[in-house]
Amino acid sequence: MRGGLTRQLLSCLARPRGQVRPLYSFSESTRAPATVPFTKELFGVKRGPYAEVTSDDIQQLAALVEGRVETDKDDLLMHNTDWLRSLRGCSPCVVFPKTTAEVSAVLKYCSDRRLAVCPQGASTSLVGGSVPVFDEIIVSTAKMNEVIEVDTDGGTLTCGAGCSLDHLEHAAKNQHLFFPVDYTIREAQLGGIVAADMAGPRTARYGNLHGNVLGLEVVLPDGTVLDSMSTMRKDNTGFDLKQIFVGSEGSLGIITKVAMACPSLPKHINVAMVYTDSFHKVLGIMRMTKEHLGELTSACEFMDNEAVMSVKKKYLSAWGVPSKPFYVLIETAGQCDMHDEEKLKTLFNALKDKELILDGQIGPLNYDDPTFVERLWNINTRILAALSRGGNVYHYDVSLPHDKQYKLVEKLRKELSGEILKVASFGHLLDSNLHLALQSHNFDPETSDELDRTITDYVTRAGGAVSAELGCGFRNRNLGAHCKDPVEVKLMRQMKQLLDPHGIMNPYKVFPDGA
Amino acid sequence: MRGGLTRQLLSCLARPRGQVRPLYSFSESTRAPATVPFTKELFGVKRGPYAEVTSDDIQQLAALVEGRVETDKDDLLMHNTDWLRSLRGCSPCVVFPKTTAEVSAVLKYCSDRRLAVCPQGASTSLVGGSVPVFDEIIVSTAKMNEVIEVDTDGGTLTCGAGCSLDHLEHAAKNQHLFFPVDYTIREAQLGGIVAADMAGPRTARYGNLHGNVLGLEVVLPDGTVLDSMSTMRKDNTGFDLKQIFVGSEGSLGIITKVAMACPSLPKHINVAMVYTDSFHKVLGIMRMTKEHLGELTSACEFMDNEAVMSVKKKYLSAWGVPSKPFYVLIETAGQCDMHDEEKLKTLFNALKDKELILDGQIGPLNYDDPTFVERLWNINTRILAALSRGGNVYHYDVSLPHDKQYKLVEKLRKELSGEILKVASFGHLLDSNLHLALQSHNFDPETSDELDRTITDYVTRAGGAVSAELGCGFRNRNLGAHCKDPVEVKLMRQMKQLLDPHGIMNPYKVFPDGA
Repeated sequence: MRGGLTRQLLSCLARPRGQVRPLYSFSESTRAPATVPFTKELFGVKRGPYAEVTSDDIQQLAALVEGRVETDKDDLLMHNTDWLRSLRGCSPCVVFPKTTAEVSAVLKYCSDRRLAVCPQGASTSLVGGSVPVFDEIIVSTAKMNEVIEVDTDGGTLTCGAGCSLDHLEHAAKNQHLFFPVDYTIREAQLGGIVAADMAGPRTARYGNLHGNVLGLEVVLPDGTVLDSMSTMRKDNTGFDLKQIFVGSEGSLGIITKVAMACPSLPKHINVAMVYTDSFHKVLGIMRMTKEHLGELTSACEFMDNEAVMSVKKKYLSAWGVPSKPFYVLIETAGQCDMHDEEKLKTLFNALKDKELILDGQIGPLNYDDPTFVERLWNINTRILAALSRGGNVYHYDVSLPHDKQYKLVEKLRKELSGEILKVASFGHLLDSNLHLALQSHNFDPETSDELDRTITDYVTRAGGAVSAELGCGFRNRNLGAHCKDPVEVKLMRQMKQLLDPHGIMNPYKVFPDGA
Repeated sequence: MRGGLTRQLLSCLARPRGQVRPLYSFSESTRAPATVPFTKELFGVKRGPYAEVTSDDIQQLAALVEGRVETDKDDLLMHNTDWLRSLRGCSPCVVFPKTTAEVSAVLKYCSDRRLAVCPQGASTSLVGGSVPVFDEIIVSTAKMNEVIEVDTDGGTLTCGAGCSLDHLEHAAKNQHLFFPVDYTIREAQLGGIVAADMAGPRTARYGNLHGNVLGLEVVLPDGTVLDSMSTMRKDNTGFDLKQIFVGSEGSLGIITKVAMACPSLPKHINVAMVYTDSFHKVLGIMRMTKEHLGELTSACEFMDNEAVMSVKKKYLSAWGVPSKPFYVLIETAGQCDMHDEEKLKTLFNALKDKELILDGQIGPLNYDDPTFVERLWNINTRILAALSRGGNVYHYDVSLPHDKQYKLVEKLRKELSGEILKVASFGHLLDSNLHLALQSHNFDPETSDELDRTITDYVTRAGGAVSAELGCGFRNRNLGAHCKDPVEVKLMRQMKQLLDPHGIMNPYKVFPDGA
């Protein structure tokens, strides 16, 4: 179990949304893809009983997609290497279908030939969900990037799986809608986002993908097209089968189209950053935020001193960010700036009166003219990147009841061997979602295994989840099943067997080794 | 296809929520259960290949649940007859387990003996989903009615499947949370609500059950317990299997426990009732409501003249409700009464300025001292009841794109035979959900079939859903599959075969005849 390895980590937290642009780009991976070790060797994975890809296969596949098959070595290297530059497969080709019929033909061919398949979009998975482990045929939906319909009245957006978040945000905004999915890496494509059931910091306000995905078109492993497309917010005509594909991480089929529910575009975004001296008070701040802001709250994020100071050290020394034990970022998204500002100020004063905060700042969010508070939002999205510049980072993304969250951080700080230099934490308070970043000089398999065990054990006992929003993919494939009811794991396998009897879809992922 | 028959219809629209009580009780079924015809005879249903229930079976089942088996004739009659007093089965017993282990033992027994099972809670299904058709063993979860935990910080509530909505609303409120599910019949129990994927008018604000159900415990047909319980808002460790049971209408297993996400309790509820003269303007009102109120909107309901005047005639003649072509009810739920009221007033004036409304009224919602506007909210929940007092009502609950909604109403008024006296319509605008109530003197099978065909055809062509929020149950079993992709119907059957190989769970429901 080496799920914690994240050598060139990028932030997995979302940047602020709305009519703003990020201060930074997140293409910070510096390692050359060619130097990344092969996953199969690094992790000693055993190849499944799939056919070997022949040059005839590649020709046949090319014929199915009007020649849109990539075999160039340099390009292949990029498609074979994950976003974090820590995993690497050796697929001999990437197939780029443009239509559902082409995806269907490709999967039917692969199924008949028993060729393993790795679905890929922008390949922004941080758990190795979207790169091959061996020679799986990479099927990219990147060219299925059409926004098909935006319905302002219905509050829905329908698109191909290859549309990027930036594209969708723009398309929604043009029709006065807000695209409710958020993820730092804005190139991420919706098919992958839905397959991974990505959440982000605004889930408490806008709901999760199980609630917001209204329709899906999925090509099953044998090439059958499952048309569960709908733009209706309520459809109770039979089982809601599309739900099984939300979060199936490409292991049951390839998502080709998505219809999403989108709320109205908020007119004003305001933020506050407050400082406090204990996690106990952090929770008090969260409670008062809910009470005062209620439906207006769009994010409530905490960061500890280690997290913020790591960013300050690497990027922001000139900004004079104060060193405080804890930071909480509160964001509102509303229709009336005057009301929103008044509510935020009232909350701020109430927090001061109750002595829950040491100090803080409030401001409107406007990235074209960034202020101190807006710069602080950016800290939130750079914590992992900053830490990874100082060495190796083991990253965990867990769900935990609030009262158990910081106890885990303290336990790790106290009990871990000298290998670990620093334990930084931050998270989405309203979602009980905690991110842990443990810094060391170098990656060490034993430390990684120890961390996996300690954290999985703690999280399982506390009734949490060892993967909150990033999925299992390759990295967490052994952790997920470890803390699940065996009946659930068995049913997962039966579902996989039913939909993918030859097991060709995204092998070596989601399920534990040997499953 | 006689899905439209609703002889003694109760309202399926939700009453206003918050800290309010309804003005009316909805126990208006006047028909004596003993006069309700047997479903199997009325609809000519063929019994499945299940074992006949023997007196030994009843003794064995009683032994599994410490004697909690009902066989009294009068009580059985109530459990065999649906809420609308229009369907009737002939089960010889109701089993009342109190624990998951007991449910498991009962299902294992039934599975081994090939006895058909009908899960039941408060039996408030309006589509005949919760009463037997033949002699299915009724397994009631009504005694599993414990609120297990309410976590204010996490915003979650965990309970047994037998908890009623009133019970849960109260338990949530005590911990400053809002229970986000709504349904007129407040005795409805959460297990059934989740099984039927009930929505209600506040889905656009608070999200649907696929988004809000965080954990489920389900007993599978063979007695296996599937523990998908969690109170975490984010859990990406493997497939989200619990989703398959949300909306499976008791045909895949019996839900025994539920964990729900609950938002903070709103402090103030305000309402406005506006009148207008075209459905085109109704949509304009909806658009401006979204623009002005945004996140604050908790409901936006339309009713046409036929709907409101039917209620006025039956119940409210003294209230002087004006006769207007269209009515729109707008509700806000927020944290600051002054802000909420100001926004609602600004909206009201803007609607007047744009000449979108003829007139209207605004007021806070306070059922202890009901005003005109609050009384009008009650109209919304009594439309079907009022119409059914004037004769037979064929009721349809469909999803349709907004621009296609009132065209269907007009088409029906224009094209239908003289059998139909009145077509009334009302709906949840923000959810594209339209309710149709067609009044006639008597129920006529041919008219019912004609309506089924006309409405299903129109809805399918328009990309809508023939069952929006009530499910398929027995009544709509043939309509759902009719407008679904055959691949989806096949996969539904495979899923049923996988989880319920002997087909004992809630037969004659959800799937079309002959499936």
